[in-house]
Amino acid sequence: MDKVVRDVVMIGAGPSALAAAVYTTREDIDTVLYEKGVIGGLAAITDQIDNYPGFADGIAGLTLADQLQKQAERFGAHIDFGDVSSLRDNGDTKIVVVDDVEVEAKTVLIATGSDYNKLGVPGEVEYYGRGVHYCATCDGAFYREKRLVVVGGGNSAVQEAIFLTRFTTHIDLLVRSTIKASEVLQHELQKYVDDGKITVHLQTTTDEIVAVDKKVTEVKATKEGASVSFATDGVFIFVGLKPNTQFLEGSGVELDEYGLIKTDLHLATNIPGIFASGDVRSGATMQIASAVGEGASAALSIREYLDKQKLAV
Amino acid sequence: MDKVVRDVVMIGAGPSALAAAVYTTREDIDTVLYEKGVIGGLAAITDQIDNYPGFADGIAGLTLADQLQKQAERFGAHIDFGDVSSLRDNGDTKIVVVDDVEVEAKTVLIATGSDYNKLGVPGEVEYYGRGVHYCATCDGAFYREKRLVVVGGGNSAVQEAIFLTRFTTHIDLLVRSTIKASEVLQHELQKYVDDGKITVHLQTTTDEIVAVDKKVTEVKATKEGASVSFATDGVFIFVGLKPNTQFLEGSGVELDEYGLIKTDLHLATNIPGIFASGDVRSGATMQIASAVGEGASAALSIREYLDKQKLAV
Repeated sequence: MDKVVRDVVMIGAGPSALAAAVYTTREDIDTVLYEKGVIGGLAAITDQIDNYPGFADGIAGLTLADQLQKQAERFGAHIDFGDVSSLRDNGDTKIVVVDDVEVEAKTVLIATGSDYNKLGVPGEVEYYGRGVHYCATCDGAFYREKRLVVVGGGNSAVQEAIFLTRFTTHIDLLVRSTIKASEVLQHELQKYVDDGKITVHLQTTTDEIVAVDKKVTEVKATKEGASVSFATDGVFIFVGLKPNTQFLEGSGVELDEYGLIKTDLHLATNIPGIFASGDVRSGATMQIASAVGEGASAALSIREYLDKQKLAV
Repeated sequence: MDKVVRDVVMIGAGPSALAAAVYTTREDIDTVLYEKGVIGGLAAITDQIDNYPGFADGIAGLTLADQLQKQAERFGAHIDFGDVSSLRDNGDTKIVVVDDVEVEAKTVLIATGSDYNKLGVPGEVEYYGRGVHYCATCDGAFYREKRLVVVGGGNSAVQEAIFLTRFTTHIDLLVRSTIKASEVLQHELQKYVDDGKITVHLQTTTDEIVAVDKKVTEVKATKEGASVSFATDGVFIFVGLKPNTQFLEGSGVELDEYGLIKTDLHLATNIPGIFASGDVRSGATMQIASAVGEGASAALSIREYLDKQKLAV
């Protein structure tokens, strides 16, 4: 049996990889994508997307994911389900291990994204995108003149709570232990507390997100041993981000302090022939538009790399 | 009269600025865009766009431009027609001169794009996007199994001619004087000449692009004093790129050797509070997807800058 060397293996099939695949396949670059979860990534499980440029009235996340998939497949992208467990640099080629099978490729695009850490409480999964959110930039504007609960006590929780005050009438900030945010942020937070825009609840553990007729109405919590309840229109949870980079252990691909992949301006990692784009990249904005744009740019870098390899033969 | 200081002035209203404006206005950041030409930029004057991610079957350039404009305006972007003649750093604010009126802003996004240099021959403007093209990555795939004329003799002309051979049956490369491309590229070009895929015509001046029933059929040229004609399905012109950065003279904004604006990973220029995104940026890909993604990322950088300024007060 002939050994097949793919032009490019893309790890993940979210918006960034699908956008990259539109570009590579349209130029007849042989492209396969491996996805272990949902095609379309976080976009696919987002109810309504208002800020992906090109859709004046917004678009359902599932519809956008479907369009991206169809567009990539239209030009010849192969999308397979499979779990990538490791990546190895082999010089001119790279070895990607998918469901224990070795796949060889001239280039690799890592676009596995990042996942938001979850609280793991009842209601959280059920109302994701419809009352439960992890991205203020994406969904904050849906809460003009509404009440919110924000969960978390780190830099991003405090920063995003402050950001959300531009929309909301009031925020209850639930902090499991004490506030861990920087002094500058804590100082800034105090102004919003003084203004009555944010109420901070320390030593408060979130227990359940309650909805009536599929509309979030209440957060149940435990504050210093006693049950408490917060009436709300929605919940934003900021308890950290987990980049999907575990499979890179031992690969030599350089990560930043948060486990995100370091790239240069052309989306190249430290290993020639391995590129990264989207939410898994250091400095990522967690925005679909950015992930898609980076996918397109990465595809051009991949083409250039392949052309140079061909010249060198 | 009170002096108004805008949160952000965006120079240009192409895809990159419109995408940025969706983000800034959705967060109630006061945003005005100044456009001297066409809202939607190069996208608006492109016939059909196949590779903007999210539209499985492609989208008309004018439709995409219209959607981007409506989306930005839906959240409150002000789009004005006006010619920006200069930009001045004033420390905490910036001064943008629009049609001889000074506009003051806390931040500026430069998204004026780049223009393709034109030959200035009959037929070039008339059949732009419908037989006459300036971007092989964008439009090359429309010419599978077709004949093409490519005009130019520099690095990009030779590189793109080679790239286009993956689609076409044959290319006539018209070079006004002699080939100026790098030796490596000339060496590579020779292989395609030997294979009969590309025929090079030196000392050949393009005179006219001829169409029958609005379909490009022929390029008329002059070769060493004699009239010659090339039957073709389309023409790709690569005679350079002109970044729209003339108004930056004396602004202190750092440009690269091609006159494109240097930015860091967060799309910031060397002057705090001044950002750049899209085709005017050094390293730009001339792709709508990249321009849009950078617009979104720049908007987040602008918000962060504005928030920090507020904290510093």
